[in-house]
Amino acid sequence: MHTVLSSPSKNVTIGADQPFCIIGERINPTGRKKFQEQLRSGDLSAIETDVAAQVAGGAMVLDVNMGLPLVDEADLLARAVRLVQSLTDLPLCIDSSVIEALTAGLAAYEGKALVNSVTAEVERMDIIFPLVKKYGAAIICLPNDEHEIPEDPARRLELVAVIVAAAERHGVPLEDVLIDPLAMPIGADTSLVVKTLETIHLIKEKYGLNTTLGASNVSFGMPDRHAINATFLPMAATVGLTSAIMDARTPAINTAIKAADLLLGNDDWGSNWITAHRARQAAENAASANA
Amino acid sequence: MHTVLSSPSKNVTIGADQPFCIIGERINPTGRKKFQEQLRSGDLSAIETDVAAQVAGGAMVLDVNMGLPLVDEADLLARAVRLVQSLTDLPLCIDSSVIEALTAGLAAYEGKALVNSVTAEVERMDIIFPLVKKYGAAIICLPNDEHEIPEDPARRLELVAVIVAAAERHGVPLEDVLIDPLAMPIGADTSLVVKTLETIHLIKEKYGLNTTLGASNVSFGMPDRHAINATFLPMAATVGLTSAIMDARTPAINTAIKAADLLLGNDDWGSNWITAHRARQAAENAASANA
Repeated sequence: MHTVLSSPSKNVTIGADQPFCIIGERINPTGRKKFQEQLRSGDLSAIETDVAAQVAGGAMVLDVNMGLPLVDEADLLARAVRLVQSLTDLPLCIDSSVIEALTAGLAAYEGKALVNSVTAEVERMDIIFPLVKKYGAAIICLPNDEHEIPEDPARRLELVAVIVAAAERHGVPLEDVLIDPLAMPIGADTSLVVKTLETIHLIKEKYGLNTTLGASNVSFGMPDRHAINATFLPMAATVGLTSAIMDARTPAINTAIKAADLLLGNDDWGSNWITAHRARQAAENAASANA
Repeated sequence: MHTVLSSPSKNVTIGADQPFCIIGERINPTGRKKFQEQLRSGDLSAIETDVAAQVAGGAMVLDVNMGLPLVDEADLLARAVRLVQSLTDLPLCIDSSVIEALTAGLAAYEGKALVNSVTAEVERMDIIFPLVKKYGAAIICLPNDEHEIPEDPARRLELVAVIVAAAERHGVPLEDVLIDPLAMPIGADTSLVVKTLETIHLIKEKYGLNTTLGASNVSFGMPDRHAINATFLPMAATVGLTSAIMDARTPAINTAIKAADLLLGNDDWGSNWITAHRARQAAENAASANA
């Protein structure tokens, strides 16, 4: 199953036989006080730095979220989408819990976007799937509903069935449906990541759908978060995860993902690995020459 | 299934619900020219450094291999086993392709050792399993025979069946049989690691046996070997690998394994992870104080 996202000049394909798709999470005001203040005053200039750092880090898609209180999120998201598209040819993931904002972001976007996200609530899906269909987008769907965020992988899979039925009812092709298997913080309960891994495996076995998740959640509250994230993503890729919304600016995490691509047979002849090795060597040589 | 190895004062348990078992590979003359010369002249002193470095790095079992041409391997292995046991309380893995050497090593060893290894050749198993039974050891078994090193995971599993039948015939309990799923270099063929991962998964599903492999093989011939090994081991643990014969002296690999223990629910309350974090912090503070 291939999910193809696009900008006017670039396609990115997500799939089990493709390199793992790195979706940069950085353009998001959550937890960034200064960025929040800038956005409230209409200043989007920090986005330029975020785009550059994530592109340099190896992001293949960029998530754009403008969710903060006391702003016109629809207007801000549309402006941010246009700004980011003027800075990079990477496809975007348009991220909001507000339907008007998703609509404005999709209307502003040129190409085939990814939408982040909809829950398995029929009422929400009946609004958002038609929007996704209208704009020819792909969408991330979460197997939780108004009643629960289920822990049991089998129950999550039942909600995936609800999502698949809704997508089919609305004529959204299944290759454009990505499931988020729900990544929970390991610090809250050390059994939760195993459940996420089982859910990924079950989705792959039963539906073959592409998957994505918020990778940074897993290490929330723990020390040495980068090391946990760099280990988690290859583990999740091994059982079938095909993309993640993640920190694309930390070299150790990117290197781990490229090693996983190599080990899973998604880096023919190891050429990406060897190219990245040479780039790291060149950077180290340049750094020591300047020292 | 639990494999319990022991020295006179320490037990180590290998199992899917246990922290991943790190078997240090360093005490081995292969590729170490100076060490080979020392061993030929009867000088075992370098072993002291190897033991200390691997214990400091987090090894839980130490492999001892004295295989080199033109020595009395049986005598050398027995001496090395006694020396290593005088230096550490970690259980040992007695490693030789020569039956006389395995016999001498087992006779010299105090406790329950791991034997490395036997292939799925009936003639070999009919000699080595009785030896394992006599000394109450556990043993690593390879699913290849005199005809082939099969690539196909299903064929490897057929040879596991041959191994299991031989162990049962000789009265070696299955919890003392570890299967090596055969780790091949990714540089030779980028589809080979996927086959190793499938083999691990099949062994776990069908037999629940513990598994081990020579982890450094995977990155042979590639640049940035540590990064590949540090990614491979958590991936293999995710599908069921319970131990590895590996480089126990590289912090990045050890950290990745500890992160995998945490993520797989084998580090209750994350206490090992947090303890290791504090040790790393203390080491960094000490290093910067001395700088």
